[in-house]
Amino acid sequence: MKERIRISEIFGPTIQGEGPLIGRPTVFVRTGGCDYRCSWCDTLYAVLPEYHDEWTVMTPTEIMARVEGLARGKPVLVSLSGGNPALQPLAPLIALGRRKGHSFALETQGSISQSWFAELDWLILSPKPPSSGMTVDWDGFETCLKMARGQPRCVLKIVVFDDADYSYAQTVAAHYPALPVYLQVGNPAPLVAAGGFTPEEADINDLLQRFRWLVDRVTADRWFAATVLPQLHVLAWGNKRGV
Amino acid sequence: MKERIRISEIFGPTIQGEGPLIGRPTVFVRTGGCDYRCSWCDTLYAVLPEYHDEWTVMTPTEIMARVEGLARGKPVLVSLSGGNPALQPLAPLIALGRRKGHSFALETQGSISQSWFAELDWLILSPKPPSSGMTVDWDGFETCLKMARGQPRCVLKIVVFDDADYSYAQTVAAHYPALPVYLQVGNPAPLVAAGGFTPEEADINDLLQRFRWLVDRVTADRWFAATVLPQLHVLAWGNKRGV
Repeated sequence: MKERIRISEIFGPTIQGEGPLIGRPTVFVRTGGCDYRCSWCDTLYAVLPEYHDEWTVMTPTEIMARVEGLARGKPVLVSLSGGNPALQPLAPLIALGRRKGHSFALETQGSISQSWFAELDWLILSPKPPSSGMTVDWDGFETCLKMARGQPRCVLKIVVFDDADYSYAQTVAAHYPALPVYLQVGNPAPLVAAGGFTPEEADINDLLQRFRWLVDRVTADRWFAATVLPQLHVLAWGNKRGV
Repeated sequence: MKERIRISEIFGPTIQGEGPLIGRPTVFVRTGGCDYRCSWCDTLYAVLPEYHDEWTVMTPTEIMARVEGLARGKPVLVSLSGGNPALQPLAPLIALGRRKGHSFALETQGSISQSWFAELDWLILSPKPPSSGMTVDWDGFETCLKMARGQPRCVLKIVVFDDADYSYAQTVAAHYPALPVYLQVGNPAPLVAAGGFTPEEADINDLLQRFRWLVDRVTADRWFAATVLPQLHVLAWGNKRGV
C-alpha cells in the first residue's frame, strides 16, 4: 500500500504568484507540517501542530483525483508547497501525475532532501534569511541539490525584508552561481498581525514601496543576475487563502 | 560607415516590468518611430513624428557606450523597445553588444521583419489586439518568425483589455502552439488621458481589478498554457518615464 500524504489544502486553478513560474496557472497542493518556524510565515495553518485537525491524510490517487477535478482533466502545473512538502512521501504522487501529463514544482527551504526531487520539473529552493529567525543547515541544502541530480530546473528564491536579508541573498547567490536567483519582497502582514492572525487586506502601498526599495538595491549594485519580484497573489487578493 | 539608429531614450538599469523577463534587471534602448498607432499606446513620445525633435541619431558605438556607462561595464540584458525597433538597423549594435557579453531582447508587433532577429536572445512578438485599433498583417508576422530561424527564444505577448482581446489572444495562441504566450493586462491610462497626456499616477486598484478579471478568465477556461502578468513597472512607478 502506498504511503499517505498529510494535506493542508488543495486549491486552484489560480496563478502562481511568486518566483520563476510567476503568472502561470497552477493547482496548489499544500502539505501540512513544517520543520521550520519562520517569524513571518504566511501559512501557519499548514505549519503549526494546533492546525493538525484541519489536515487530511490522503492517498496519491485521492490527491490526483482532486487535482484533476479542479483542472477538469487538463494537464496542469501542480505546485507542491507547505509547510515543508519535503517532509511528505510524494514520490508516488509525482509518478502518477507525470504519467497523466501533469508537471510538478516543489518549493522547500532545503532542510530535508528526498531522492524523488529528481522526478520534479522545478525545484525551488528557498533558504530562509536572517529575518526569518531560522538558521539554515547548509549540508542539508547541499544534499537537496545533489538529490535533484540536475534533473529539475533548480532555482533559489530568497525573501528579502531588510539589509541583512539582502546581504545574505548576495552571499548565497555568490555561493551558487549556477542557480538563477529570485529575490522576493517580504510581506510583513503575518509579522504585524498580533496573535498569529493575518489581516486579509494587504497594504499595497507598503508592498510596492518595499518592491521599489529592493529594485533600487539590486540595480544600484548592478546585480544583473538577480530577478526581483513581488508576491503577485498578495497584490491581487491580499492575504486571503485559496487564491 | 555603419548606419545610425534613431533613439528616443536610453535608461536604466531598472527591471523589465512585462512578459517573460519580468523582474530582470535591464537597460532599455528605446528607438523612435513606429508604423502603428495603437489607441492605448503608452509611449507616444517614441511613436509620433511630432516628437521627432526629441529623438537622437546615434551610432552603435555611441549607444553601447551609453549602455555600458549605465551598466558600469557589467554584462547586462538590453531591452530593445520602441516605437517599433524593427524599423532600425540594429544588427551592428547587437553584434557589438554580444561581443561584449551583453544579451538582447527585442519587442515588436511583428509587422516588420529583419534578418538580424536571429542574432537576438529573445524575440517578443506582440501582435496588437482589436482594442488597439490596428489590423495585424499576418504574413509579416510569419516572416518575423522565419527570420528568427529558431535562434532567439520567441514568445507571444498579447495585451488584453476586454473580451474581444481575450478571444483574439486565444485564436493567436492556438495558431502558434509552439510559442509560449504571455497575456498582459491592459493599462487604460493613455486612453483615459485627454489630448495624449497620460497621468503619472496609475490607478492601482483598477489595474489589479483588471488583473483579477484576466486570471479569472484564464483559469475558468483552464487555459493552462497562458501566463498572466500585469505591468509591474506601472504598479511600482505609475506611468512615469525612465523606470
